[in-house]
Order: sequence, then C-alpha cells, then structure tokens
Amino acid sequence: MKLYSYWRSGTSYRVRLALALKGAEVDIVPVNLAAGEHREDAFRSINPQGLVPTLELDDGTRLSQSPAIIEYLDETLPGPKLLPSNPLERARARHLAALIGCDVHPLQNLRVQRYLKDPLGHDQDTAHQWSAHWIEAGFEALEAELNASNHAGPFAMGEAPGVVECYVLPQLFGGRRFGAEVERFPRLLELEAATLAVPGVQAATPNAQPEAG
Amino acid sequence: MKLYSYWRSGTSYRVRLALALKGAEVDIVPVNLAAGEHREDAFRSINPQGLVPTLELDDGTRLSQSPAIIEYLDETLPGPKLLPSNPLERARARHLAALIGCDVHPLQNLRVQRYLKDPLGHDQDTAHQWSAHWIEAGFEALEAELNASNHAGPFAMGEAPGVVECYVLPQLFGGRRFGAEVERFPRLLELEAATLAVPGVQAATPNAQPEAG
Repeated sequence: MKLYSYWRSGTSYRVRLALALKGAEVDIVPVNLAAGEHREDAFRSINPQGLVPTLELDDGTRLSQSPAIIEYLDETLPGPKLLPSNPLERARARHLAALIGCDVHPLQNLRVQRYLKDPLGHDQDTAHQWSAHWIEAGFEALEAELNASNHAGPFAMGEAPGVVECYVLPQLFGGRRFGAEVERFPRLLELEAATLAVPGVQAATPNAQPEAG
Repeated sequence: MKLYSYWRSGTSYRVRLALALKGAEVDIVPVNLAAGEHREDAFRSINPQGLVPTLELDDGTRLSQSPAIIEYLDETLPGPKLLPSNPLERARARHLAALIGCDVHPLQNLRVQRYLKDPLGHDQDTAHQWSAHWIEAGFEALEAELNASNHAGPFAMGEAPGVVECYVLPQLFGGRRFGAEVERFPRLLELEAATLAVPGVQAATPNAQPEAG
C-alpha cells in the first residue's frame, strides 16, 4: 500500500496512526501542500480533488477521506481492532471520533483559514483565534465525555489505543499550532502521552516525517 | 426508541432518514433550537452538550453524533442495509458521506453562522454567502464523484438509497436555505427526487415535522 500524505495534515496523521496501530507496512509518499503540489497535474491524476490523505491499494484502487480509510483498514487488515466489537461501544467510539472529525477539524483546516483572510479580510491572528476557539470548544466536550466514561483510561475505549486516539493526537498537534490552550485538557494529554509510548506510533507523528521542517 | 430532533437541523434529518429507510418505529421528540430549548436544563439532562440529534434506546441509553447513530442503526436494526457489504464499497459510501459530513455541513451550521456575526462582525448576507460557498464546493466534488461512478443511479451506491442519501438530502435542504445554486447539480437532484419517492421517506423531511414553520 501507498499513502499520499503531508506531514502537517491532521487527516494524514490520523491515517498514519491507524496504519501504525494495525502494524501495517505502507509506503508514505509526501505531497507538499504548502508548495501546492496537491494542485499539480501529477497529483491530480492520483486524486482529482487534490486531497491528502489518499490510500492506494496494491491493485491501484484509491481511497479518500480519513474516516472511510480508517474504517476500511480496520475491516480488512489483521492486527489490533481500532473499533470495539460491541455495537454500543462502537457507537461511542465513533461519537468521540466525530466530535473531532466533524465538530472541530473541518473548521480549522487550511482552506478555511485562507477564506477568513480572503475574501473576508481577517488577519492571521484572527484566523488562528478562530481555529483555537473551535478546537477548545471541541476539547471541552471531549474532555468531559472522557471524564464521565466508565473506561478508566489512559485510552478512550479500553486497554489500547484505537480510532479515538487516531483523531485526538492530530487535533492536539493542530491545537498547539493554532495557540489553543491544550494544557486545560489533562485527560486528553494523558491519552496522547500513553499513545505516543506505544511501539511504532512515534514514526507516524508529523515531526518524524521526512519532509517535516 | 426516541429521537430528539429539530425539524431544520440537517443532522437530525439524516437520522430521521436512516430510521425511515430501515423501516424503524421511533418517537420523534422536537427540541426547538431556534427558541434555545437545547440549552435549557430539561434537555441538558438528556444531552449535557445540548445537541440534537440524540437517540434514546428503550433501555435509556443515549447516542450522539449522527455518523455514529446511523452506523449503529445499520448494525443493529433489521431492514435494508444502509451500507454496502463489500469493504471497498463501504469505504466508497463512507467517503461520499464524509464529503458532506466533514467537508460541508460543519462549516454551515448555526454556531458557525453566529460566530461570523459576533465576534467577527459580518452581516447575515456574508454569513449566508460563506455557507453557500462551502456547500457549492462540496457539491461540485460530490457531483463529479457520482458522475464518475460505475453505479448508474439514481442512487449513489446501488438499487436503493442508503447512507449517502441520508447525507445528501439534508445538505440540499440546507443549500436551498442558504442560497446555494443547487440547480447546478442535476445528479444530486436526481438522487434526491428518487429518494423522496421511496415509501416512508416523506415523513422524515423537515416540512413534515410537527414543529415546522
């Protein structure tokens, strides 16, 4: 398998984490979003929308959208399950993942930051405050959910990291970048630290990517 | 089962559609977001975050976040499957759903509209243009995906409506409300018309809800 990925893209980081937790072998192909490589013909022939992450299977089939890719990997690869097997627990894991995937991340990604500047005329600081606002609102909800959970921690759903951790770690990375007060969320930081200590996970982090800088 | 729902909430409409397509019996409990009922103690005791939709099972268990609720309903209820059984097709269906659920809807919901006005100081027209911009961008991607599909239509994934339709119909409803040029997307309109003709679906639409006005 090949994963078209950008080091600082939160959705790319999610899929790199899922692959790491499954213990899967994958070739990471960097696509430099900051340099506009995703808009060039070479990558448009891979993904017409110009989106990372894109997962390319060995037969050439390509998959888009990190929530769909992560569920696919969990359904088809051996290794630890990222989603619980019980339907109610699965719903809970998907609920916590969607708190990040639907309620937070879409509001802070690059195209939204750009639109706030042009045409809306805001400066970089306002764009970062916008992002930090939605990130902190989502983290408040998620921290409360985890503190009210009957899972003791440090992970969200049981004895090992899974789909929820695939969403939380990239959002903490994004939160620090945009100046969100991540230290207000000790339960999330505990979850992050425990996940980063799992063998193989460090190699999935943004700063471990060859193009990071 | 009970569904706490608001007639004009796109995510509530998604779950009403999923329940209708599964042929499930459910009591719809209206929560008037425009009147702020979701912030009152009575509803906070049901959902501490004050969010609709919330699905309450017969044993009192409550589920949040429409993507998680829809997957749960499909995993546990009898009736037609909303997701295909083949993993690649499931990934494709989830990809198309996420185009709406992650790339479009989060940018046009009520709290984002409000933030654009206060603190960012924009007027109602600008807030609607913002919403229409993201809706049209998402619809362009989705229309292109459906036109490039090897499924003939009118539905996204086969002979009957499923998870993709649960996302597209509410987003078309939102698109019209915010002035997006939905007539530019004939493939989506064809999918919508075919879904609305399926027995039971009309009762799930916003205007069929008792509190609609």
